[in-house]
Parts: sequence; C-alpha cells; structure tokens
Amino acid sequence: MAASIRVVSLNFFFGTNTTAAPNTTTARRTTTTTTTTRASRPRAAVAASSKAFFQSGFDHHQHHQHQSNTKKKRGDQQRVKNTPAGLETNAPLGVFVLEYDASNEDTEKTRSWKPIIKIAVSGAAGMISNHLLFKIASGEVFGPDQPVALRLLGSERSQVALEGVAMELEDCLFPLLREVDIGIDARKVFEDADWALLIGAKPRGPGMERGDLLEMNGGIFAEQGKALNEVAKKTCKVMVVGNPCNTNALICMANAPTLDKRNFHALTRLDENRAKCQLALKSGVFYETVSNVTIWGNHSTTQVPDFVNAKIGGERCTDVIEDQDWLENDFTPAIQTRGGLLIKKWGRSSAASTAVSIADAMKALVTPTEEGDWFSSAVITDGNPYGIEEGLVFSMPCRSNGDGSYEIVEGLKINDWLRERIKKSEEELKNERGCVAHLMGVEGGSCPVLEDTLLPGEM
Amino acid sequence: MAASIRVVSLNFFFGTNTTAAPNTTTARRTTTTTTTTRASRPRAAVAASSKAFFQSGFDHHQHHQHQSNTKKKRGDQQRVKNTPAGLETNAPLGVFVLEYDASNEDTEKTRSWKPIIKIAVSGAAGMISNHLLFKIASGEVFGPDQPVALRLLGSERSQVALEGVAMELEDCLFPLLREVDIGIDARKVFEDADWALLIGAKPRGPGMERGDLLEMNGGIFAEQGKALNEVAKKTCKVMVVGNPCNTNALICMANAPTLDKRNFHALTRLDENRAKCQLALKSGVFYETVSNVTIWGNHSTTQVPDFVNAKIGGERCTDVIEDQDWLENDFTPAIQTRGGLLIKKWGRSSAASTAVSIADAMKALVTPTEEGDWFSSAVITDGNPYGIEEGLVFSMPCRSNGDGSYEIVEGLKINDWLRERIKKSEEELKNERGCVAHLMGVEGGSCPVLEDTLLPGEM
Repeated sequence: MAASIRVVSLNFFFGTNTTAAPNTTTARRTTTTTTTTRASRPRAAVAASSKAFFQSGFDHHQHHQHQSNTKKKRGDQQRVKNTPAGLETNAPLGVFVLEYDASNEDTEKTRSWKPIIKIAVSGAAGMISNHLLFKIASGEVFGPDQPVALRLLGSERSQVALEGVAMELEDCLFPLLREVDIGIDARKVFEDADWALLIGAKPRGPGMERGDLLEMNGGIFAEQGKALNEVAKKTCKVMVVGNPCNTNALICMANAPTLDKRNFHALTRLDENRAKCQLALKSGVFYETVSNVTIWGNHSTTQVPDFVNAKIGGERCTDVIEDQDWLENDFTPAIQTRGGLLIKKWGRSSAASTAVSIADAMKALVTPTEEGDWFSSAVITDGNPYGIEEGLVFSMPCRSNGDGSYEIVEGLKINDWLRERIKKSEEELKNERGCVAHLMGVEGGSCPVLEDTLLPGEM
Repeated sequence: MAASIRVVSLNFFFGTNTTAAPNTTTARRTTTTTTTTRASRPRAAVAASSKAFFQSGFDHHQHHQHQSNTKKKRGDQQRVKNTPAGLETNAPLGVFVLEYDASNEDTEKTRSWKPIIKIAVSGAAGMISNHLLFKIASGEVFGPDQPVALRLLGSERSQVALEGVAMELEDCLFPLLREVDIGIDARKVFEDADWALLIGAKPRGPGMERGDLLEMNGGIFAEQGKALNEVAKKTCKVMVVGNPCNTNALICMANAPTLDKRNFHALTRLDENRAKCQLALKSGVFYETVSNVTIWGNHSTTQVPDFVNAKIGGERCTDVIEDQDWLENDFTPAIQTRGGLLIKKWGRSSAASTAVSIADAMKALVTPTEEGDWFSSAVITDGNPYGIEEGLVFSMPCRSNGDGSYEIVEGLKINDWLRERIKKSEEELKNERGCVAHLMGVEGGSCPVLEDTLLPGEM
C-alpha cells in the first residue's frame, strides 16, 4: 500500500488550496527566484498567505487526491518556489509554500511501509505537544515502518507559534513524517484523522470554580466532538488529555454519535506510571517488575491507584510491601497529588512525562498487551463488569490485542477500601456529568457545587 | 558485561553519601513508615537533605562500587525508606532516598545489554535538556541494548527544577535508564562520564557585547574543562552546545589537557539539518535524498552552509538547483539566521529541534557513517586538510566508523565563493580565541571588538 506515500507532501497551507495551474503565482513579497520546471506534469505551489489560511482553513483532501494522481519518475523533479524569508517575520515564509515529491525516494526502503496514518493534535503549540509531536514524528510511537501525517490544531493566539513548531519539525528531517498541516479550524484539521489527541484545554483563571472550568472547556470539547463526527475517520481513536479529561471525553463522545464510544479515552496512564514508580521505589525493585497497576476513576485527586491488585515481580504487591499504612496513607495521596508537586518543583506542568505517558497509552492500543497484565485508561463504563454507573468515562483496567481496540479486564478484587474510594470518584464524575448535561444534549442535568479536586496549577 | 547493571541504582543524592550502616536514619520529617528488611546483606538508604547535597555534592563512585559488590537473589529484596512527601515542598522527597535492586529483573532481557554508560549533561534544567534527556533515557540515541546513567548538572538557581526533572524521568519508567544523579558541582557530576553534553550557558544580558558573553561563558567552560580533566573518563566525548559553542569548546579543551582534543565537538548539526531541509524544499524532493551537506566554520551567522559539495539524490546540488542566486543570496542567509527566525515565531529558542540535532550528532559518532556521505561537526583544526588555522574549533565534514571517533573528510572542492566565506568565519574564530586567551592559559591574546554574529535571543 505504498500508494498513499508514493507522492506525499509536507504542507503548510496558508491560503485556500489551489490545485490549480502550474507555477501559481504566490502573493509573497520576498520571492527572488524563478521556478524552473523540468517535470512533465508539474504540480502547483500553494499560494501563501498566513492570514487567508487562518480564515479559510485548507482543503487538504482534494489536494491530496490531486497529488496521488501525479506520479513522476526519478529525476523528473518539480521545482517549487520556496524562498526562506530570513528574519522578516511579516513576510510569508518559504516553508509554507512547498511540496515534496517523494517519488524520488529510495523505494526499496519505503515499499514495506504501512499506509500513512493521520494524527490530529489539539493544543499543538503547547508544551505537552512540543514533546509529543517530535516523539510521534520520530517513529517512536507507531514504529519504523509507519509513516505519519501530523495535523496541528492551534488557536488564533498560538498561530505564529504553530508555524514555529511546524518549522522545527521540518528541521528534524524525520523520515517517517510525511505531512504537516496546521490550522485553527477543527473541521479541517480533523479531516480523515486516524487519531485525535485532544491536548489543548484552557487553564483555570483566577477565582474560577471547577464548574466554570467544566463549562468553558466543555464547550471546546463539544465543538471538537462535532468536528470529529463530521470529518474524522469513523475508526478514529480519540485520546483526551486536556482537563478535566474524563468529562471532556464524555462531552466529546456525546457530540460524535457516529463514532463508537469505545474509541474514546481519557488519559490516566501518567498516573499509572507514577504509581508503578512509587511501588518500585518502596519495594526496592526496578520499575519494570511492577505490573497490573490500575488507576480507577477520575483523573483528579479522587483517582484510586490500586495496590490491591497490583503485582511486584509477579507477587501480590501487598505481600511484597507489607505496610498497609504506607499504601493507604502515603502512596495513595502521593499519586493523587504528584502532578501538583511537580508543578511546584518545575514551575510548570510536567509536559515531558505527560507526553511519554500519552505515547505509552497510544502504544498500549496498537501493541498486544502482555499476557496477564493490563493498562489503565479512562473509557466508557457501558457494560462494565464492576457495577460502575453507565454513561461515564472512568479509568479501568484494559487489555488490547493491538488493533487499536480494548477490552475491560474482569475479575479484579474490589475490597472495601477500594470500593469506598471508587464510589467517591464515581460520584464526582456523575456530578461533573450533571454540570455539562446541556453540552451533551441532555435536558435537566443538575450541577452541585463541586469540590475542588484539580491540582493547583495543573491543566 | 552485566556486572555494572546487575545491581544498579537510580540515585538522587541529596546528602553526603553514606555507604554506612543499614537503615540509616534520615533527616526527613515526613517518614511515616518502617523499613522492613529481608535482605541478607542490606544496603543503606542514603540520607536525604537537599541542602546538604547542594553544598557537598555526592560521592557516586564509592557508592557505586559498594553496590557492585552487593549481589542478591531474586525475591531477596531490600526495603528502603521512601515516603513520597506529597505537596510539602520543604520536606525532602522520597525519591531522593532510594536504591533499586535490579538483580530482581528479568535477566534474560538484560543479559545481552552493554555495560552502562554515563552521560553528564549541563544546563540540565533548561528547555533543550528537557527534550534531550528524555530522548537519551528512552534509548533513542544509544539503542535498545545500551543502559544509561544520567548525571544532571544544574545551578543553585535551578536546583529545585532539577529535582522536578529527575522526578519526571522516574515517572517515565524508561527501562534503560538505570541511574539519575543531580548536582551543582561539575567535579562530582562529571565523574567517570563517558559523554559530557555541555548545554548550559548564560544568555546575553541587556547591552552586553559579544566579548562580554565570551568572557562570562568562557569562565564556565574553563571550569568545566578542568572538572572533566580531573574526573571524567579519558575517553569522554564532549559535545558543546552552549553558545558561543565553538570557542567554549576550545576553552574547555584547553583546560582539559589530559583528554584527546579530538574528543571535543561543538554542535553544528542543527545547521546541517536546516540546510538539508531547505535544499530539499527548493528541489522538491524529500529531505532524505539530500546528502553531503557541510557547515563550515563557526556556529554563528558567519557559518557557511556548503551547497557546492552537497548532493541531492546523488547528483550535485548545483546541477539540481540551477539557481546560483538563490543558493548564494537566499539559502545561505536563511540557514545562517533560521535560529533567530524561529525565536521570533515560537517566542523562545528552538529547543526540540536542537535536542534532535544533538541526538543526531551523538548517533553520528556511534554509528558508522553511510558510504560516501559525511556529517558536520565543529572539531579541532589541528592537521586539517583545508589549510584552516590550527588550534581552532571549526565545523568541517567528518566521518565516523561508529566507535565514537571521527576523521575529517578530505578532498571537498573549495571554490572562491566558499573560500572567501570560510576565511571570514575563520577570522572570527581567531578573534574569539584572542579574547579568551587568558582562559586558555595563553599570554597576550588580543581581543578586537567583535562583530555581533549571535542571533538576537539565541542562546
């Protein structure tokens, strides 16, 4: 299936797409070079105007189809206008007017590659994305035979930074990174997406209640859900990272009724990783020996890191760490509040480890889970075997056969200690759902005053 | 050679190291747990006091030797005190009192691993390091069978942030990351280092001349050179990233006379990557087809990206891009000033792509260079085949057989255009050397007023 990558592009559409005539004249003021064309069927350069782009978005799909019909021989190269514009930031940039003709590549190498997959990322100019995008582009997440297209969703405020991110991605020369598109219209950026990583969320302003935050971010995720519903692949996997992520995922899901609810995840993998680390430290083993760690519930301070079912070196965690008091009163709150602690240390959110955990969470879905183990992900509770209220996005133990889907692992022991805390997190999520009912198309939701379970400063 | 990893540790020494008695009492206020010891030969927890650490540094070497003599059987686990301290940032942190006993690991997996290598990183709390450290720890640079120890050098100012970085590294559960040490004393942090990545440098303050910057940062690199000379492995590879990196590398080298001068590099790989990208864009090919790109000279705006000897799809670049005007007057300044352009876009230095290029530069030394190709690195000019003044650190085309060493590639065509520009960069580096002569132990250096060739805001 090399068709989708035989001719590819790294696109920064800053104008309405012109699949138009060869040698389209661009609006750039800095063009100092002539376009020499040797190609028998030359392709067009795309008109450059960052302003126009951010008003009109881009029409990537048509453009791509056009390209796929264009097949050229080695050495039969299209010269496109591309003048790096130096330091004049008001001038549209060369990099935004370009097409690669990958038919000149070493096809021996790319022949075995899988069809390209499209990964849309919101909050793409933020710090978490700044780590994650480069990991995905390097092949670390999907492997060395999986070419990727990155579709970066920003905001008007982050527009220029997003250009910088795209330029830096270029400068890294990642062989697997075949396309980069940037934009501020989710309906364009999510088009045909195989994955949507919803990282962007507004942080809480001064004096803002948790309910206000739910409302404000909920609106964003309702819109993004509608966009996914309209333009993403029906198999698109959606991973919500922007907080409050469980309820944001629920809102997104409710607004994307044509996508399977089981395609939505909210990230609790960072919490799982943190829990594994602390259990390893306590028991004096390296962290690879810790397995079967579940985070139950909401990605908030009500989350329940499960030491009851966890294993260390194949033994029950509670047999290895014979210190119930530490497990209940030190370990548990340490995991629940580690994000806040890191913010105090580092002065900002833990972007690098969050990005690593997003990559872990994605890899968990595209790699078969190791025999006997599981991973944590917040998923729809419909039909869950633990009696948790349906219609919530709740972190539970999951397994995957590596095809992108998952199943909830049954049969974990829920003792009284766990049950009580899982219940509390469930109540919190029911309350959150009540507060955003109107964003889910549900009448008459009630919104109690919510306890503040977000960590100070955590996004 | 599993000996060095059979028993390893992830260490955050915040006290003078006590290889002392088991169950060393810590100074922590938050200890709420008892240490249960099942080990026949228990090891000690390390006293925790971040203050003490930053005064006294740590004595890792002794500690490590102690550990290497401690070999335990599966299940024979040492319980160490480790109480995550929640949000009380004044309390010393649990993670800084820990030892892993990796003898409990799956030895099938680790048996084929290479001996651990120690990578010291200065400026470890900065943005470039924040990308690079996680890449190295993930195995991306040295491969999946190379365990690594990270030694993070910060400053008093960055001390708390450095703790945050170390905690985030923990939270990522990287299997190959076997040790993390942090400190502010280069003589401790560089001990036994196989690699020293010197990323930290002070940015230029308002109104500061380039000469002042040279002086200020030169002092840092003189000290770090002395430290490397005293405590690093004699085979230690030193890569200087902090600017002005060529002259900083020269100062460092002059202060480390027992290390081979050929072990020092200043980073011009990012410039090379940027040049490859722009040539690919211009010629409409994917960037993998661009090869043999040299950056000559100083990592400043006098650098010379060499399109004369570059190749595109195996053809001469100038045969593919038949636009001399673009090559000379657009391409060349675009590469020289791209860093500054990115800062304007992104609002800060291009940390992510810099980190990728550092990883590329390291990989270039530990992987055999592809037949017929080369890479750019700023290295000592002694004995160079291009008539460049000796005793400078100057970017030139290099090849490696993958053992960490390199050779300068001979026979590149230097036409008048190149010669004139290479000469200018050489003159600049001679002037810079004159300004820092006293830092290199040389009498009577003269320091002319230097033209400002650092990019605005670039570090």
